[in-house]
Amino acid sequence: MSTAGAARPVPLRFGVIGTGRIGRLHAELLASQVQGATLVAVADAVPALADEVARSVGVAVMPTDELVAHPGTDAVVICSPTGTHGGLIAQAARAGKAVFCEKPVSLDLGEVDAALAEVNRAGVPLMVGFNRRFDPSHAAVHEAVASGALGTPEIVRITSRDPAPPPLSYARVSGGIFLDMTIHDLDMARFVVGSEVIEVYADGAVRVEPALAEIGDVDTAVVVLRHQNDCLTVIDNSRQAVYGYDQRVEVLGPEGMVASDNPLANTTLHRDAAGGHVAGLPYFFLERYRSSYLRQWQAFVASLTNGFAPPTTGADGRAALLLGLAAKKSLAERRPVRPAEVDVPAEGQGGAPADLGHG
Amino acid sequence: MSTAGAARPVPLRFGVIGTGRIGRLHAELLASQVQGATLVAVADAVPALADEVARSVGVAVMPTDELVAHPGTDAVVICSPTGTHGGLIAQAARAGKAVFCEKPVSLDLGEVDAALAEVNRAGVPLMVGFNRRFDPSHAAVHEAVASGALGTPEIVRITSRDPAPPPLSYARVSGGIFLDMTIHDLDMARFVVGSEVIEVYADGAVRVEPALAEIGDVDTAVVVLRHQNDCLTVIDNSRQAVYGYDQRVEVLGPEGMVASDNPLANTTLHRDAAGGHVAGLPYFFLERYRSSYLRQWQAFVASLTNGFAPPTTGADGRAALLLGLAAKKSLAERRPVRPAEVDVPAEGQGGAPADLGHG
Amino acid sequence: MSTAGAARPVPLRFGVIGTGRIGRLHAELLASQVQGATLVAVADAVPALADEVARSVGVAVMPTDELVAHPGTDAVVICSPTGTHGGLIAQAARAGKAVFCEKPVSLDLGEVDAALAEVNRAGVPLMVGFNRRFDPSHAAVHEAVASGALGTPEIVRITSRDPAPPPLSYARVSGGIFLDMTIHDLDMARFVVGSEVIEVYADGAVRVEPALAEIGDVDTAVVVLRHQNDCLTVIDNSRQAVYGYDQRVEVLGPEGMVASDNPLANTTLHRDAAGGHVAGLPYFFLERYRSSYLRQWQAFVASLTNGFAPPTTGADGRAALLLGLAAKKSLAERRPVRPAEVDVPAEGQGGAPADLGHG
Amino acid sequence: MSTAGAARPVPLRFGVIGTGRIGRLHAELLASQVQGATLVAVADAVPALADEVARSVGVAVMPTDELVAHPGTDAVVICSPTGTHGGLIAQAARAGKAVFCEKPVSLDLGEVDAALAEVNRAGVPLMVGFNRRFDPSHAAVHEAVASGALGTPEIVRITSRDPAPPPLSYARVSGGIFLDMTIHDLDMARFVVGSEVIEVYADGAVRVEPALAEIGDVDTAVVVLRHQNDCLTVIDNSRQAVYGYDQRVEVLGPEGMVASDNPLANTTLHRDAAGGHVAGLPYFFLERYRSSYLRQWQAFVASLTNGFAPPTTGADGRAALLLGLAAKKSLAERRPVRPAEVDVPAEGQGGAPADLGHG
Repeated sequence: MSTAGAARPVPLRFGVIGTGRIGRLHAELLASQVQGATLVAVADAVPALADEVARSVGVAVMPTDELVAHPGTDAVVICSPTGTHGGLIAQAARAGKAVFCEKPVSLDLGEVDAALAEVNRAGVPLMVGFNRRFDPSHAAVHEAVASGALGTPEIVRITSRDPAPPPLSYARVSGGIFLDMTIHDLDMARFVVGSEVIEVYADGAVRVEPALAEIGDVDTAVVVLRHQNDCLTVIDNSRQAVYGYDQRVEVLGPEGMVASDNPLANTTLHRDAAGGHVAGLPYFFLERYRSSYLRQWQAFVASLTNGFAPPTTGADGRAALLLGLAAKKSLAERRPVRPAEVDVPAEGQGGAPADLGHG
Repeated sequence: MSTAGAARPVPLRFGVIGTGRIGRLHAELLASQVQGATLVAVADAVPALADEVARSVGVAVMPTDELVAHPGTDAVVICSPTGTHGGLIAQAARAGKAVFCEKPVSLDLGEVDAALAEVNRAGVPLMVGFNRRFDPSHAAVHEAVASGALGTPEIVRITSRDPAPPPLSYARVSGGIFLDMTIHDLDMARFVVGSEVIEVYADGAVRVEPALAEIGDVDTAVVVLRHQNDCLTVIDNSRQAVYGYDQRVEVLGPEGMVASDNPLANTTLHRDAAGGHVAGLPYFFLERYRSSYLRQWQAFVASLTNGFAPPTTGADGRAALLLGLAAKKSLAERRPVRPAEVDVPAEGQGGAPADLGHG
Repeated sequence: MSTAGAARPVPLRFGVIGTGRIGRLHAELLASQVQGATLVAVADAVPALADEVARSVGVAVMPTDELVAHPGTDAVVICSPTGTHGGLIAQAARAGKAVFCEKPVSLDLGEVDAALAEVNRAGVPLMVGFNRRFDPSHAAVHEAVASGALGTPEIVRITSRDPAPPPLSYARVSGGIFLDMTIHDLDMARFVVGSEVIEVYADGAVRVEPALAEIGDVDTAVVVLRHQNDCLTVIDNSRQAVYGYDQRVEVLGPEGMVASDNPLANTTLHRDAAGGHVAGLPYFFLERYRSSYLRQWQAFVASLTNGFAPPTTGADGRAALLLGLAAKKSLAERRPVRPAEVDVPAEGQGGAPADLGHG
Repeated sequence: MSTAGAARPVPLRFGVIGTGRIGRLHAELLASQVQGATLVAVADAVPALADEVARSVGVAVMPTDELVAHPGTDAVVICSPTGTHGGLIAQAARAGKAVFCEKPVSLDLGEVDAALAEVNRAGVPLMVGFNRRFDPSHAAVHEAVASGALGTPEIVRITSRDPAPPPLSYARVSGGIFLDMTIHDLDMARFVVGSEVIEVYADGAVRVEPALAEIGDVDTAVVVLRHQNDCLTVIDNSRQAVYGYDQRVEVLGPEGMVASDNPLANTTLHRDAAGGHVAGLPYFFLERYRSSYLRQWQAFVASLTNGFAPPTTGADGRAALLLGLAAKKSLAERRPVRPAEVDVPAEGQGGAPADLGHG
């Protein structure tokens, strides 16, 4: 779906659109930490926000249209609100730019397909930001499966809990827990199992933020996935883990199991008369996944400079969205749902599943 | 349902019926390890088996009927095949004996209810063998919840995997994975959450022992429970974990999380050029849960000598069976099932749920 | 030094002399837990103490002399105060009994040699109670060295800390920290390194119990050992670790390292807003080393019934005492001390070092 | 000894002298990672080396004298060979520059004192590179002591092992293991105990690199320190740990213990039929201590911009060197050595010990 095209010269010149929490991080990383990359401009619908980030990293502020069209940018990084993703992807693709887009590509499959069709027509590379694949520990779980050391996966457990719920205003536009939060875990399940999901069952409850009930969302959820290869994946999510950002992935296969655990703030062990005490978890994704974001950029730059396809593609973004929509329907209808039930015919592409790379 | 009755004098004299793997362990423990208990006789449908155990622990062999009726036994321990449980409970109750019965009480709710009715009429104490409640680590998880340290549970994860599948002949009569294996986890969910289950969803696959497909059983399963208090529990089971008997319980609540992990064969850490290496898990339940079986006996003896109700009752056995039956139906019908859908009217007792003891 | 002699018939009949804390434990284990062993009598200079233990395990009380001489005992277990060990070993040896003696054999090398000479003359087996060798984790460290997996040891670290200091009255007669407490670690160093010690350096301080200064003892100590094979061992001891009984052994060799850690009271992990919390250590040796005491008995019984030499001999007891005396002299004189400097000519035996069994 | 002087304006302009392994790292960090700092030039006696680093970070190459004198540098970072440190410190101090010098300041106390006297006269800040104090885990150990949570330290254990020995050519000029490698641990002991060392005992062996014997050095060492407050510290060092760079610090006090452990390459646990497997250690200091180097720069920049004294001073460098010299003498003379025995009268400063900052 996304095309690699010819290898490009370094340093690759990036422009970042959207300078909120995650856009600012990407700007900082691209400005000084990524070998082979450089940052040339930032843009934001709120110019004051863009100004502050631009000053801090020493680059120009441009209006979004100008940044996308500018001959001095090779690649566009889309960190603006989800509703703008589809349009910006299409615009950047038409401008011939390599595109990095934060997840989710869109909350609407039709919009995703329209954007991917543009990417396809333009033959530009598109990478979707599933940064957790680049976390050294989760990646090692994937590698253990891909290497065959475990045999074909039988059971996967994914725990993913945020430290605190987002503002209700955010929850209203986020598409709900399955499209906003679980989507990372749905991608992780595809990534570590290496086999597409054929059925989704979801259950959920409002335990943290009572107001969510009014907008039909939940803050506590459990999802069961059945994969084509008969692997069963269980995901548990909570919007509130007071002990920090809890992120764990575990795979059982016929030859053994591999699990990633949370890194701790430090390695100390304190023993006193009350027992043993260890450090807490990183507070949230900026602390936990900083190295995964950096490795994600290194992987994208490597794919662009070598002319390879990006490691996470538009098809991956579409597949995770489809599973999130199936989870939503499952919770609403209290039954397992096949992804095909919530799919739409993709525009002239047949909706071929992405190759999960365990080939 | 089971009655404590008056306090009894020590040492309590036990007779063990059924001297297979678990019966032999109980006989050994009661013969010499349990303060306040003594073993006086064993019985088995295969007399040679009973002889060997009797010799090893230095007690008499008796025919089952004699053992139950004998004035020299205060309490009867039922470890014979599941199909005999109901009848033996009733027989022992009529003889006025305290009864300990291994799980499951029966594969048939009607039979359970008939046995419990006899227990009720006789006013004798009945304890059902959910030994895992007495494991120091799982018990500490329960205690953390019961103490209020976590707040009301939101998510529970239970992993329970056997090292190797049982013989097919056993699988044929065991009632299937949910009644034979998951039943422990269903009881654990009730135990640590402290709230009854109102809905069960099960998925499963045949991944280990292909012949199971022919008898409609699975060897790999995932179960989702919804409790009355809105807690969601996920259980994952496999009949084969080549790395050993994997038994973990985790509870998330608004104030934090508590998890029990597997004890290891020893505490060594070996580091070499290939990485770090730690000991394996205990092979199976006899190795892992020996201390829980001992603590279970201490608890039963304490309840009998103090005139208290046993810590795990017939009602607990019935409740776990009901959830196992609901899981079976859920897997067959591919939908969540309410326990009431598989229940039968209990004989004159109203089927009141057991008090889960979280006060 | 101690002789195995002919294989003996089971069950071996034991008599325990001294029914304090450790004698009581041995009596309980021998009475019901040790395959191939049975307890027939206990003795204590304080008859009331012996009575209570005898009643609890269901055996006879005898005066010490009678117990030693009694034709119904095959083996004598010496748990009385250290000052009586030498005489009782000799007496039991002359009576032809197999002997188990708690450490230290004596605080005086001449007395040890006299006792060992009697054992030698009588040709009876003598085992000295260095129970830690039988702890599964420390034993696994030894095994990793003995198997050659680490190569020849280069550095050993031993941490051994008691939870609380003994009464001052005990400290007065115990021979000081090096003969009472460090002696276990000195034996452990010989055990895991598999090479004799040729130099001892000790430093110490009074940090816990100021009154120790008056009797020339310390409660906080560090000992450095140089072994014949150039391995360096560091031992650290404290009479007070408020977090529990801390017992760790670590070996570095050219191929890697192996370390034993403390077992915890349970395997739970509790995370809350303040961090992570794990269980505490076992309080003291009765809790931590119960399984090592049991395994020690199994090893002694196996050696007796097979006609093999006991796994820890009188020579081991003598060697550890010698190192303890060297440590004492080192602390007093503020210099490294060779064991030969504190040795005495052994009575007609040449003081041959025990075979450390690393083949 | 080093003076803070007035607060300086940001960004502080650094020049790095010596572009070997550690100089290159500092150059990279200062060029882009340290808030409030910027790199303006690098110098090296081998211009080709400087050229490569300069190109990679985008700064100028200057001859050393020019870099020190240049009005465009506020601070000089000395990473050249140890023999040049003293002269460069003095030169930079006379030029009025803030100075950061890698450890050891010199192998010769007289040279150290001469350099510190110049620093004193010039009133410039001098920081010595004991980066491990800034490791989050070791720092947390220090903090636990400094906060009073442990009480006054009683026993400290420091393990510090390199993955592989340096080239023999390096060993010849490094001053030996105690001045090159142990010096970090000697500083760590002062840092976590918060009390000066009054006696040093060292033992050592040649186990890894036989040729070291010819130059009077060892590769395996144990050091015992007695502090003024009666704390005993044991350090163990090896030039070769095949499992990676092993760095651990542990403090026992009357209220408990705190220990820092090694971070692992990732957090995965792999269980198979052979046991459990975890990731290895970071290979060496560049991998393990990258974050400590960064935090060290942040601390130096903070001290300069706030007009505070640097957190590790010339007095700290001198104190660690003195202990290293005492260890060397102890090994040679096989006896404990007081630091005063190897000290020289400091030039007009009285050699006052640094304030260890535990209030």
